[in-house]
Amino acid sequence: MPVAVSFYFFEHQNIKTLLVKLSYMEGCFKCEANFVPLSPISFLERAAFVYRDSPSIIYGDVTYTWKETHDRCVKLASALSIIGVNPGDIVATFAPNTPPHYELHFGVPMAGAILSALNTSLDPPTLATTLQQLQPHIIFVDHQYIQTIEEAFKALSNHKITLPRLVVIRDNSCTIAPLNTLDYNNLLSIGKADFKIICPSDECDPISINFTSGSTGKPKGVVYSHRSTYLNSLAVIFRYDMKKMPVFLWTVDMFRCNGWCFPWALAALGGTNVCLREVTAKVIFDSIVVHNVTHMCGPPTILDKIASSKIDEQKMIPTRVDVIVAGPLPSSVIISKVEKFGFVTHHGYGMTEALGPMTDTCLRTSNLIEDDNDEREKIKCRERTRNILMEDVDVKDPETMTSVPCDGNTIGEVMFRGNVVMLGYLNNLEGTKNVFKGGWYNTGDLGIRKPNGDIVMKDRKLDSIVTNGEIVSTIEIERVIRTHPFVKEVAVVGKRDNTLGETPCAFVVLKDDCSLSSDAIIEYCQGMLPRCMIPVNVCFGVLPMNSTGKVLKFVLREKANAIGE
Amino acid sequence: MPVAVSFYFFEHQNIKTLLVKLSYMEGCFKCEANFVPLSPISFLERAAFVYRDSPSIIYGDVTYTWKETHDRCVKLASALSIIGVNPGDIVATFAPNTPPHYELHFGVPMAGAILSALNTSLDPPTLATTLQQLQPHIIFVDHQYIQTIEEAFKALSNHKITLPRLVVIRDNSCTIAPLNTLDYNNLLSIGKADFKIICPSDECDPISINFTSGSTGKPKGVVYSHRSTYLNSLAVIFRYDMKKMPVFLWTVDMFRCNGWCFPWALAALGGTNVCLREVTAKVIFDSIVVHNVTHMCGPPTILDKIASSKIDEQKMIPTRVDVIVAGPLPSSVIISKVEKFGFVTHHGYGMTEALGPMTDTCLRTSNLIEDDNDEREKIKCRERTRNILMEDVDVKDPETMTSVPCDGNTIGEVMFRGNVVMLGYLNNLEGTKNVFKGGWYNTGDLGIRKPNGDIVMKDRKLDSIVTNGEIVSTIEIERVIRTHPFVKEVAVVGKRDNTLGETPCAFVVLKDDCSLSSDAIIEYCQGMLPRCMIPVNVCFGVLPMNSTGKVLKFVLREKANAIGE
Repeated sequence: MPVAVSFYFFEHQNIKTLLVKLSYMEGCFKCEANFVPLSPISFLERAAFVYRDSPSIIYGDVTYTWKETHDRCVKLASALSIIGVNPGDIVATFAPNTPPHYELHFGVPMAGAILSALNTSLDPPTLATTLQQLQPHIIFVDHQYIQTIEEAFKALSNHKITLPRLVVIRDNSCTIAPLNTLDYNNLLSIGKADFKIICPSDECDPISINFTSGSTGKPKGVVYSHRSTYLNSLAVIFRYDMKKMPVFLWTVDMFRCNGWCFPWALAALGGTNVCLREVTAKVIFDSIVVHNVTHMCGPPTILDKIASSKIDEQKMIPTRVDVIVAGPLPSSVIISKVEKFGFVTHHGYGMTEALGPMTDTCLRTSNLIEDDNDEREKIKCRERTRNILMEDVDVKDPETMTSVPCDGNTIGEVMFRGNVVMLGYLNNLEGTKNVFKGGWYNTGDLGIRKPNGDIVMKDRKLDSIVTNGEIVSTIEIERVIRTHPFVKEVAVVGKRDNTLGETPCAFVVLKDDCSLSSDAIIEYCQGMLPRCMIPVNVCFGVLPMNSTGKVLKFVLREKANAIGE
Repeated sequence: MPVAVSFYFFEHQNIKTLLVKLSYMEGCFKCEANFVPLSPISFLERAAFVYRDSPSIIYGDVTYTWKETHDRCVKLASALSIIGVNPGDIVATFAPNTPPHYELHFGVPMAGAILSALNTSLDPPTLATTLQQLQPHIIFVDHQYIQTIEEAFKALSNHKITLPRLVVIRDNSCTIAPLNTLDYNNLLSIGKADFKIICPSDECDPISINFTSGSTGKPKGVVYSHRSTYLNSLAVIFRYDMKKMPVFLWTVDMFRCNGWCFPWALAALGGTNVCLREVTAKVIFDSIVVHNVTHMCGPPTILDKIASSKIDEQKMIPTRVDVIVAGPLPSSVIISKVEKFGFVTHHGYGMTEALGPMTDTCLRTSNLIEDDNDEREKIKCRERTRNILMEDVDVKDPETMTSVPCDGNTIGEVMFRGNVVMLGYLNNLEGTKNVFKGGWYNTGDLGIRKPNGDIVMKDRKLDSIVTNGEIVSTIEIERVIRTHPFVKEVAVVGKRDNTLGETPCAFVVLKDDCSLSSDAIIEYCQGMLPRCMIPVNVCFGVLPMNSTGKVLKFVLREKANAIGE
């Protein structure tokens, strides 16, 4: 039966005007013909029709068409139903970027279930904790990680939880003997080709759970909806000016914000997924040449891999390749090296809660960038071209929720709201309420507004320093120290101080064969930074990083506080 | 307060499983931070931030930036509120593609009102009928059409309806003296720059009303929602592989499906709108050269204008220009001529009810097209690359609602469903129910499914012929007759026949300086068509067309039935 459309003027108008208007709009209603819950599943349904004979996935010697990928995903969904996966159940994966992992991005939601792709760099104890939190019904594990999963299961056996059912993904590269457990290919073979896929009845129903990288504490399960992933898939296409049928090299992990929604976006575009088990410089160059790759993305470490590749690994790049990195800002030296091969680099600011990068700065073609590395370094911090689906971005005083003035100076918290924000944290109502305070997503990142309205990211709120009542951005201090010709990398944190509250403490990594004293660094900063920003302590050594290449500042903070104790 | 997300497994699961799952998902809810009703208004808000200093509109000597366009639209919305426009009110326009008409596409919805851009080729009596049906609160009329509107108002004065308030749009080209009525610029000047725009509280609320072209009868008011126009704006970008900041030449009327959603799509892309009062070959070539136009669209007549341009009007085209036409299939001769200038032509199948073209066939680059005009002619009819936002397209038996077999033969009705389908017909519940039968939009067009699943459009249901119990496609007959070297254009309709029900009657337009007899046409068809498809009558002369270039078959049908009476 037709459902009458609700008009927003119901509340505003007097009843007579209302009745006139209602009679106007008689004939308008929401029904199956004109309203379908948004879900990225639909991209695959369409691709099977529009791009049916075009290549969907290439992995070593294996190539699938979109029709084949669609049919395999339908069978996968059917098989999951047959072995007892119900709508709303959680299905976990622990796998590299292989074709089965791609298929699970469709097959699991097509069974009405929720996908959780887990970080394969987790050690067994952390994996065990995550599984305890997630309670998946099934876990799909690539043969490469069997041992990790067995150890995690062992650690869990003391707890009163039902272990997830294990399905092993074995491919041609697998040399280990089949285990006494279900195998991905066997599972697929029991699926029915005519299975009626389960579409969400509400587009805000959950589709996946991604864990944060945990640079600021314990990883949190971030829940995405069908609606948000559908819209974000369109947004990534828009953001990177992607044309139909691109060739995408899988250098971003599918367990990072569902590979930033690219599994779904590629189906929307009818593109080709070049799957990889391992990402090396050689594999990147070889794949680009063989498959005419157009796009790739990932953490800034992929730029490092390309920049530091050996001459015999390098190849001439036949067409333009756009590389999108998200995470710490790559250095201009690395970018220049990568661009010399013909790559066009982009940088995004984002987070798991925003379904990946929320902004895009094309490091080369932005018209703001002069051919000046210093200028470029500054521009990169300006995040202006926000995700088309992100309704609003602002820098606010978190207490009053008013915008900070556009004075290029006043620091506030970066906040946003829109349809590409998570549904919330898994099983953590307090955590969700906390970050959604005031009807905005409170990022915990600090920023300022330039006189022209541009937002410039400063620092994590947690990583900023309050010294003598002044909020100091550690990014600013790092930027200055990084200009020293002997400095390779630097991270600044606050060290507890009984008088001032905190003082800046710099951890510096020097370039090979360079040497420098703490005093030399402090002296270098004088005249370039206000007094309160000059480091009081300088330490040398390696920086602790997480798997996305983010410096673990909480580790450094402990170290800083231990100095002189 | 947070609203709990509804899970679709509520209905399926037993209560114990449900409770476990609910506790899992604790922490997930819809709120202002992660759910914003979709509305194309947001594209302008974002453009004012991201593309602030880039040109939004160029019209003669006038250029606006996106910041200026945003500010003008806010003031327009404010002014509308001040003069008494309430949310839900209808605001009509009767204007060419000038900047005020563009601004009204944002300003009216920003005041919570509904925009209805009326066809400027309507004669005063038809306009009067339309206004009676629409009952707008205000009508914005370009100075060029003052006389038409005054005559329509006169015709309405006998009826007991409140006449809409008249606002005249005058620009530099206006030579007539100001009337004793509100003027667009005066109105704008009373608007407040800090007006808080009214966003829809429900994304399915109406944003605009477009009238059908009436090729099959009386024009119907088709209501669009904020959601559908938002999604279709993204879809047109996707469909034509549009990159950010394109330059769009306004050759499609804004009163056709809101210029196929391009006013909103251009704001999403931060592109430049080159507005035009009148579309001539000279203006097209001049604008392309001066402004580096990248895209234009409209009815196939714009191709005719380009193809038949005089040598002194033609210019070298500096960059690729994509021309998208929707309506009758343009002839391959015209396409070849247009392509020689450097245009890339696309053809779309669609209708007002689907927010414009629903499919896209690139006439040049499709890999299906050989360099063979005949083959191309056939391929154009295959509509495969459907709108990404259109959930499902099928050819069905309208009685049983089952799909016709993929035999390339069985004729059924083309149907679709998805988020880019109208909310319904204004004030016409029966009409809406009728086309939404069975949960699909019933197009009234006939089609078949090829063995590979491709859908081939055949004919309007109304325009097909039932002869001796057989459904015959008039398009097929037309296609054959059109291959005769002397034939310029042809339309076939059914003529009543007491024995057979109907028989085909062909109306033929011959090329200049060609002559041909009826018998010669009939003879030509023999051997190329089955007996039931060979025309029984052939007439010569001009074909009656509506303003979009569609042949008015109901006029021809009357003529055919009058033969021999």
